[in-house]
Amino acid sequence: MGRVIVDVTLKSEILDPQGQAVLRALQSQGLKQVADVRQGKTFEITFEGAINKEVLDQVEALASEVLSNPVIENFVIRSYEKES
Amino acid sequence: MGRVIVDVTLKSEILDPQGQAVLRALQSQGLKQVADVRQGKTFEITFEGAINKEVLDQVEALASEVLSNPVIENFVIRSYEKES
Repeated sequence: MGRVIVDVTLKSEILDPQGQAVLRALQSQGLKQVADVRQGKTFEITFEGAINKEVLDQVEALASEVLSNPVIENFVIRSYEKES
Repeated sequence: MGRVIVDVTLKSEILDPQGQAVLRALQSQGLKQVADVRQGKTFEITFEGAINKEVLDQVEALASEVLSNPVIENFVIRSYEKES
């Protein structure tokens, strides 16, 4: 079993109302020093077999089609385990 | 400016319908070897000053009140930069 973690974040020029709501909530709970909060998504993908370069290439291709909206989001393959 | 990244994931015994939808989408796009997908949230929190132990302790305390629902979710402080 291999595992890939993909992080999807809003591009920096895109407004993040959810992040702003969390920012205000943290500040109202006493964390006054918070300057900004950005919320993102994470996909932990488990594979039946081991992970090879072909699988990683497929994940990278599908990340911009299935996992993220390339108009407003960036993605990065944060980590992977070939087998576990 | 310090920065803290908090990952929030569903507990393993909690159903993840969003992850299941992504699983089916990946499989239908040709990634047949996918066995499971779990979707999580990420909060990137930027602070005005440097980050010290007190700030990290506050983040940890608020992560279970503001950032996550401890009944169904786990959180982990993935990384932090004291200053940047």
